[in-house]
Amino acid sequence: MAQNDIERLIQLLARLPGMGPRSARRGALHLIKKRESLMLPLAAAIQRAADNIRTCSSCGNLDVSDPCGICADPKRDASVICVVEDVGDLWALERSGAFKGLYHVVGGTLSALDGRGPDQLNIGSLRGRVADGVQEIILALGATVDGQTTGHYIAESLAGSSVSISRLAHGVPVGGELDYLDDGTLTAAMQARRPAE
Amino acid sequence: MAQNDIERLIQLLARLPGMGPRSARRGALHLIKKRESLMLPLAAAIQRAADNIRTCSSCGNLDVSDPCGICADPKRDASVICVVEDVGDLWALERSGAFKGLYHVVGGTLSALDGRGPDQLNIGSLRGRVADGVQEIILALGATVDGQTTGHYIAESLAGSSVSISRLAHGVPVGGELDYLDDGTLTAAMQARRPAE
Repeated sequence: MAQNDIERLIQLLARLPGMGPRSARRGALHLIKKRESLMLPLAAAIQRAADNIRTCSSCGNLDVSDPCGICADPKRDASVICVVEDVGDLWALERSGAFKGLYHVVGGTLSALDGRGPDQLNIGSLRGRVADGVQEIILALGATVDGQTTGHYIAESLAGSSVSISRLAHGVPVGGELDYLDDGTLTAAMQARRPAE
Repeated sequence: MAQNDIERLIQLLARLPGMGPRSARRGALHLIKKRESLMLPLAAAIQRAADNIRTCSSCGNLDVSDPCGICADPKRDASVICVVEDVGDLWALERSGAFKGLYHVVGGTLSALDGRGPDQLNIGSLRGRVADGVQEIILALGATVDGQTTGHYIAESLAGSSVSISRLAHGVPVGGELDYLDDGTLTAAMQARRPAE
């Protein structure tokens, strides 16, 4: 298979997360076989997304408009801002339907190992947003060391403002079995136990 | 995430083999974050492959030229034709380096269940190719019921010609498919090929 066009396609497909050389080869063959129904539409969709998607200058979300659809929606509760690490986390919360306020995407976590400091993240603009009548900041960051460190830093950077700061509860995942949970989660769930209905 | 351009991109990525909704979302985010280094090159590569890749009218291989690079290569041994189910199998044999002849891609297997008969496959043209001084046909079909049935059919359709017909040795695991085999097994099976009954 010394065909440059096919090999180039396979190489680029292999760089998608979760794809390796084998699945990239299968993907390339699948595309070529579904030329009209998948290959051409996919090329157009990638190009269109590259042309149109931009980062919301207010919250850091990705959308075709700036401000994004969530920031521009008058039905969202502008008094609550949920801070997430990544746009993927924002999407997950939107799918759950559990949150009707606005978001703030910091774009990662502080990390001493990876040399990521506050200046590399979208944290500074959060203080300016809090001034505009925001009453609660929900820190929906990962329950990792870096995620918690980032949460502490954000909470400290907002000290002195009257906004209340909360975190997502730790506990047993719905549908999860105790036997498979780690000790830290079990301890947190035990300490945060609530009266049974 | 009511953004049409992003959702459309995710939907199309999810139709690649081995991708689901979750990996498609991760893939779309990854693309948007690597706009210059991956997203735009991938869109261009898919479009270029769609424009340039064609099916070889002689052997059924996919390439940017017709006849394909293998059929047009004077160094390949034109007296041996290796019959494979799919272009993915041809790629696997080429990676193994075990075969220096020409190929014939039939494009699938006969299948009573799926209603695929000889007319849906690229079998008829094989007889014409055999007339041109071909001495051996190697049936490199999957060791599945359908693959073996297809092999029998091809062998019978060539009865009366002086060509010798061989099969890959049963180093191929029964029930396995060529595309999933390691190079060593493919090489062993190619060397141990035996006359067809």
